Amino acid sequence: MLKGPFLSKDWMGANPSYEASSWIMLGLSYDGTCSNKSGTKFAPQAIRTASFALEEYSPVFDRELCEIDFYDAGDLDLPLGNRDKSLDIIEENVKAVLDDNKKVFSIGGEHLVSLPVIKAYYNKYKDLNVIHFDAHCDLRENYLGEKLSHACVIRRVLDFLPTKNLYQIGIRSGEKSEFELMKINNTLIKSKEDKEQMLKNLQDKPVYLTVDIDVLDTSVVPGTGTQETGGMQFNELINYFREFKDKGLNIVGMDLVELSPDYDTSGASTAVAVKIAREMMLAFC
Amino acid sequence: MLKGPFLSKDWMGANPSYEASSWIMLGLSYDGTCSNKSGTKFAPQAIRTASFALEEYSPVFDRELCEIDFYDAGDLDLPLGNRDKSLDIIEENVKAVLDDNKKVFSIGGEHLVSLPVIKAYYNKYKDLNVIHFDAHCDLRENYLGEKLSHACVIRRVLDFLPTKNLYQIGIRSGEKSEFELMKINNTLIKSKEDKEQMLKNLQDKPVYLTVDIDVLDTSVVPGTGTQETGGMQFNELINYFREFKDKGLNIVGMDLVELSPDYDTSGASTAVAVKIAREMMLAFC
Amino acid sequence: MLKGPFLSKDWMGANPSYEASSWIMLGLSYDGTCSNKSGTKFAPQAIRTASFALEEYSPVFDRELCEIDFYDAGDLDLPLGNRDKSLDIIEENVKAVLDDNKKVFSIGGEHLVSLPVIKAYYNKYKDLNVIHFDAHCDLRENYLGEKLSHACVIRRVLDFLPTKNLYQIGIRSGEKSEFELMKINNTLIKSKEDKEQMLKNLQDKPVYLTVDIDVLDTSVVPGTGTQETGGMQFNELINYFREFKDKGLNIVGMDLVELSPDYDTSGASTAVAVKIAREMMLAFC
Amino acid sequence: MLKGPFLSKDWMGANPSYEASSWIMLGLSYDGTCSNKSGTKFAPQAIRTASFALEEYSPVFDRELCEIDFYDAGDLDLPLGNRDKSLDIIEENVKAVLDDNKKVFSIGGEHLVSLPVIKAYYNKYKDLNVIHFDAHCDLRENYLGEKLSHACVIRRVLDFLPTKNLYQIGIRSGEKSEFELMKINNTLIKSKEDKEQMLKNLQDKPVYLTVDIDVLDTSVVPGTGTQETGGMQFNELINYFREFKDKGLNIVGMDLVELSPDYDTSGASTAVAVKIAREMMLAFC
Amino acid sequence: MLKGPFLSKDWMGANPSYEASSWIMLGLSYDGTCSNKSGTKFAPQAIRTASFALEEYSPVFDRELCEIDFYDAGDLDLPLGNRDKSLDIIEENVKAVLDDNKKVFSIGGEHLVSLPVIKAYYNKYKDLNVIHFDAHCDLRENYLGEKLSHACVIRRVLDFLPTKNLYQIGIRSGEKSEFELMKINNTLIKSKEDKEQMLKNLQDKPVYLTVDIDVLDTSVVPGTGTQETGGMQFNELINYFREFKDKGLNIVGMDLVELSPDYDTSGASTAVAVKIAREMMLAFC
Amino acid sequence: MLKGPFLSKDWMGANPSYEASSWIMLGLSYDGTCSNKSGTKFAPQAIRTASFALEEYSPVFDRELCEIDFYDAGDLDLPLGNRDKSLDIIEENVKAVLDDNKKVFSIGGEHLVSLPVIKAYYNKYKDLNVIHFDAHCDLRENYLGEKLSHACVIRRVLDFLPTKNLYQIGIRSGEKSEFELMKINNTLIKSKEDKEQMLKNLQDKPVYLTVDIDVLDTSVVPGTGTQETGGMQFNELINYFREFKDKGLNIVGMDLVELSPDYDTSGASTAVAVKIAREMMLAFC
Repeated sequence: MLKGPFLSKDWMGANPSYEASSWIMLGLSYDGTCSNKSGTKFAPQAIRTASFALEEYSPVFDRELCEIDFYDAGDLDLPLGNRDKSLDIIEENVKAVLDDNKKVFSIGGEHLVSLPVIKAYYNKYKDLNVIHFDAHCDLRENYLGEKLSHACVIRRVLDFLPTKNLYQIGIRSGEKSEFELMKINNTLIKSKEDKEQMLKNLQDKPVYLTVDIDVLDTSVVPGTGTQETGGMQFNELINYFREFKDKGLNIVGMDLVELSPDYDTSGASTAVAVKIAREMMLAFC
Repeated sequence: MLKGPFLSKDWMGANPSYEASSWIMLGLSYDGTCSNKSGTKFAPQAIRTASFALEEYSPVFDRELCEIDFYDAGDLDLPLGNRDKSLDIIEENVKAVLDDNKKVFSIGGEHLVSLPVIKAYYNKYKDLNVIHFDAHCDLRENYLGEKLSHACVIRRVLDFLPTKNLYQIGIRSGEKSEFELMKINNTLIKSKEDKEQMLKNLQDKPVYLTVDIDVLDTSVVPGTGTQETGGMQFNELINYFREFKDKGLNIVGMDLVELSPDYDTSGASTAVAVKIAREMMLAFC
Repeated sequence: MLKGPFLSKDWMGANPSYEASSWIMLGLSYDGTCSNKSGTKFAPQAIRTASFALEEYSPVFDRELCEIDFYDAGDLDLPLGNRDKSLDIIEENVKAVLDDNKKVFSIGGEHLVSLPVIKAYYNKYKDLNVIHFDAHCDLRENYLGEKLSHACVIRRVLDFLPTKNLYQIGIRSGEKSEFELMKINNTLIKSKEDKEQMLKNLQDKPVYLTVDIDVLDTSVVPGTGTQETGGMQFNELINYFREFKDKGLNIVGMDLVELSPDYDTSGASTAVAVKIAREMMLAFC
Repeated sequence: MLKGPFLSKDWMGANPSYEASSWIMLGLSYDGTCSNKSGTKFAPQAIRTASFALEEYSPVFDRELCEIDFYDAGDLDLPLGNRDKSLDIIEENVKAVLDDNKKVFSIGGEHLVSLPVIKAYYNKYKDLNVIHFDAHCDLRENYLGEKLSHACVIRRVLDFLPTKNLYQIGIRSGEKSEFELMKINNTLIKSKEDKEQMLKNLQDKPVYLTVDIDVLDTSVVPGTGTQETGGMQFNELINYFREFKDKGLNIVGMDLVELSPDYDTSGASTAVAVKIAREMMLAFC
Repeated sequence: MLKGPFLSKDWMGANPSYEASSWIMLGLSYDGTCSNKSGTKFAPQAIRTASFALEEYSPVFDRELCEIDFYDAGDLDLPLGNRDKSLDIIEENVKAVLDDNKKVFSIGGEHLVSLPVIKAYYNKYKDLNVIHFDAHCDLRENYLGEKLSHACVIRRVLDFLPTKNLYQIGIRSGEKSEFELMKINNTLIKSKEDKEQMLKNLQDKPVYLTVDIDVLDTSVVPGTGTQETGGMQFNELINYFREFKDKGLNIVGMDLVELSPDYDTSGASTAVAVKIAREMMLAFC
Repeated sequence: MLKGPFLSKDWMGANPSYEASSWIMLGLSYDGTCSNKSGTKFAPQAIRTASFALEEYSPVFDRELCEIDFYDAGDLDLPLGNRDKSLDIIEENVKAVLDDNKKVFSIGGEHLVSLPVIKAYYNKYKDLNVIHFDAHCDLRENYLGEKLSHACVIRRVLDFLPTKNLYQIGIRSGEKSEFELMKINNTLIKSKEDKEQMLKNLQDKPVYLTVDIDVLDTSVVPGTGTQETGGMQFNELINYFREFKDKGLNIVGMDLVELSPDYDTSGASTAVAVKIAREMMLAFC
């Protein structure tokens, strides 16, 4: 028999048992509606492979991955070109995990994949709130006539989620009408006061966290499809996570989307994604 | 007033008048069903920009682009994520050009864009024959359940085109069942005799030429989505064109698809695509 | 007839009429004196192509490109290798636009292209002032014996522009003698007080704005010829623009130079250049 | 429970059971002695990930991966920097597989990893013969004083393997003394006669096949550490495999080494490696 | 005879005489123990070649390279794969320079090369103190069982250097046990007070400065082997240097390690390394 | 004193003495007239650095670099932007070497650098013949009005060299008028007979060999400024060299131009250039 030692084919530190795990990591390799550069479908495996170059320990959260029970379910094999069916398969799988009383950490793929995930969550948690990190509003009614596009994903979420349950952070790009919508509904966190109000509102609420990696500056993550300069540095994002953790937010589901690994041949963007994912797990799982 | 001189924003050597042109170059920037690497939607503009690095003259065909009347219509702005509507818009536009008694040279995009083009052609030319250069059979009944995929495009063409009107060249990859289909229907050109029979059959027939750039070896065109080694060198492809021209084939429409320019950062793949396009025009327009 | 819809071949949001436009965007594809990496000649077309990946609306300036009348004249076709003639052609064209009582937004190319542009402006606006964003002084008397080099462009401007009319921002690299020259003439904006004095001085003066993209940090724009770390973040640059706008500076001409798009294969540097160009237009046109 | 469908984390088509498999694929991620560019340690996982972009069927061998029982054991986790211990771990694991009466298909890593594998094979098959595809002789007595280097691997094999049992194909680079050694011992296959003699000699002998991917031309595989132009095209290599198969050679073990995937950002080199690996399995397993 | 002028093959501004120089620049092209991406062995020559794209003058230190006597000794030709012998050769050469009463500025290579350098320094300066800039603790007792790894280099230094003589800056990654070690020994500079205490302690002490370039954020230096986001900007690092200089620290030796130039195809990472090296020389030589 | 061993900063195998050498290698880092991608100015140093990855021995010519006395003079430091002065400096230096009765092997840079070299040679060898390997005719009377452009270099040579003394090989691109010029003057080697006639003509004549690396196919050398598919494989070029050597051609000077190393991030193009240079030296020096 083989003696090894072998590198795992799962995410660094993952628990090999679905049953024994309370969080399920799910790869959602879909990128069919990208308005600009695509390639986000390669992100889940790229992040998995690169996870071994990072430490399991976070000095920020003083915690190691081995302290968490998460299972790496692998990547769904989606019918490329069929957007609607792809979304259905995602929703079905997320629902299955929620039915098992587990939580889901999805790795995109483009941002549209968050729609069926949040839908499944909303069906379980009627009082769901959503925190949305992004460079883009994603609030278009449609994009080139399409209502199901990564440029409209949060607007589609608002088709069922009450607007007051949405909090948007880092937004710096959109159409004029999208910014007006944010203004009317007061969804954008612009100040320290906004943030504190949000944290107060979210006490004892189930919260879904969706992180579009382009909330970070393009210098930090050039490997994304719709590159938008003027964004956060990595530590600013982590500081949000730290505050969420310190305030005891109840994160019931989360995703990390829009890494397009091949566009950054240095691999640095993928390394950033791995570290965000690790910190999300160490903070919230 | 500005004095210039200015570089054209159209393809090198294009005629600025649609009316005065007999061939219309049409960019089909769709890549929604790519089974592997995408990015073919960027090809039409990349090829246009790079066209100025090439000479207008071909020593092979002893002809210059200025001898041809072709109009560069630009790139269709397609509703990304909505495959079926994208295909409809393509078909409509091609039909419009054919109704004006002009011919179309389409630049993809992924190979699925050839389906609505060939459909429009077939509606005009009932006796249409198709010559298909490719590494892949593209004869799957479906791909992950989808009948409309770039892996199925020629199979979908065979939904209306008689099998005997199809000629496939350069194929070296597919499922077992696809190779069996080629064998049963005898669509693959494997020998000098096959080629001569094809050329004889095609005399006085309207012929549509679809060139998937991955018919060339990956060393020649690494910038493509489904890289398949073991293919033709550039001059072998040009020799086919030379023979088609010498035999007086009546090419009534043509396309060049599947360049994914960003995957070859040297720009060499795009330069190859420009040269293929130029030779196709100088040989057949 | 073709039905489209088609993507424009001009810059996103450009007005198709020269006559109806008050600003003319002009591509200056020259990179013959680059002391290090070249390739800036590819920038104007790269920026044009990438413009469609950005929104037309700026939340910073709460304005959309459709509110501005600018015409995309395309890129001058310059006699490569003949520096002096290239500069002459640029000057002639800029003069022609100014004679039509329009303004010019030039897209380089290397920084030397700003010389003939500013010359033409100076001939029209005798009281012209120049704001110069750059990592480098560009104040050398010559570079390897050459007086016409991108390393000398501002020194050549000072051959006709009074030194007191020059304001330099972001400079962090040069020869000792260049820094001494800046000190003697007090051209470098080093403090809040300097900036306020500059803004006061420039009230009611015609101002030309030249932006060398390497004023930004190399992490933000690796795709430039003379990479110089330690520079501004994107938002710092935009804050300057915001102040210029708030103080009502009268920007009569402007340029954006030194992007070398091929050196950043992620395309992020080009995306940054597009956004700078958009913000310059929305702030000052 | 999750419903999927999921993409496998193993090699495309691999059998999930070690026991049920007759061939074991083993990743040997070591690149510590590379004389030039390294990065071959990333090859096993890169090839595994990319395997899903290829078809399971080979038209050359008219066979599919599902007809073969191979197990993907994953990649050994080797103590980087400790060459000798890394080699020991490899040898131990290969021995373990051979003791189970299974065969090993190793994926490197640099070429030095073949040494412990061939050693383990030699201990089992005393009459072992080795076919060596490579651009380089790998016959140096030492490299900068080191006897254990990827430039010396075949010389080290000859420390135990009788010289007459070695056959070298595709060699085009080395020191003068290495070429003299090949001449004296007549190990290089230079002609059709040489090849036929080899095939005759190898009848009924256990044969180990070691393929350094740089036997192919650098245009086909730029992603390798010691790029050596003037090599084979892909189809020439496959023709050797076809002949080996037709003559019924008894391949008892094999490896594919020296892909350095990050050096070819197009991914084409990795795609070539996947296809070589697939053809090796379909021809010899 | 040749008239030139010629570019130097040495580092920009280097003195051609070893004897006449007080600082010796030494290239240490070793990368055998890299736990992740390698290629740091190419850094010394890449930095040398790129040095000519930078100015010799630093406005921060108001000094030019021509004011310094440093000799560019070139790169040691190390026996790749033999870690221990490579380290011995490095130590021997550094000792030789120290015996000549000169100082050494080493350019790595991976961080393990600092071990023999610091050893040689410690043998000469018994009261040596070490300032360590890095993203990683490098304090593991071993890495995959190996005590000599770039992940353990500072731990190995602590085998002879008193712990109180070590000061670590910028650390943000490691195992839990490494962070505990830093805490117990109070080696990490976390606050302004820590820094001031350090500067006070170091008065009149011989100080060795080791700079792992990944102390900078990955956006500034993507071209490094173990990419760790969340780091310093360039100017923060320079500010440390400025303070060290202002306080008159007695830097007797220094190194700059872990640039992996090929992973940043823009060349920006290498340009950053050149500028760090120039500032280190202008501040401390 | 330093003990080393050190890697040389000169070309692999170069003789450190100018006086003792009969061939002088000269880097001509000029790329000011490139009609398309530039960056050839970086080739001489890139080739020098990469030379150490190749063996000194050529099995084709059964000879080692140590058998040749060549001196690596380094790269001329040319006044960028001043084409005419750059050409003058080149001519002066080549003349100086010829006056010392030595021969020159120039490494470009763009092809225009061959003009002053051949001029200097022609002044010494009145009966000079030129063999020109290239994808492009380089016979334009001017390019965008410029008579001194890399697109016109051979036409400029014909301003002094008798047309019958020119032999062109591998040409596959140009304007119609250039191909007509080649036809009228019969300068293109198209057949075996042409080649044999050339070899007969050149007996006992001084021959200058200019190799534009784009004579090779773009798959072999993507790293060049004007990528032109359909070219030679490496071995075809070497076969020409072999024949030249076997026929005892008297090569009195030679150059290798138009490598643009940064456009091929794999380094393969540079590796090809190194090998061509080595084979040229081993065949002709």
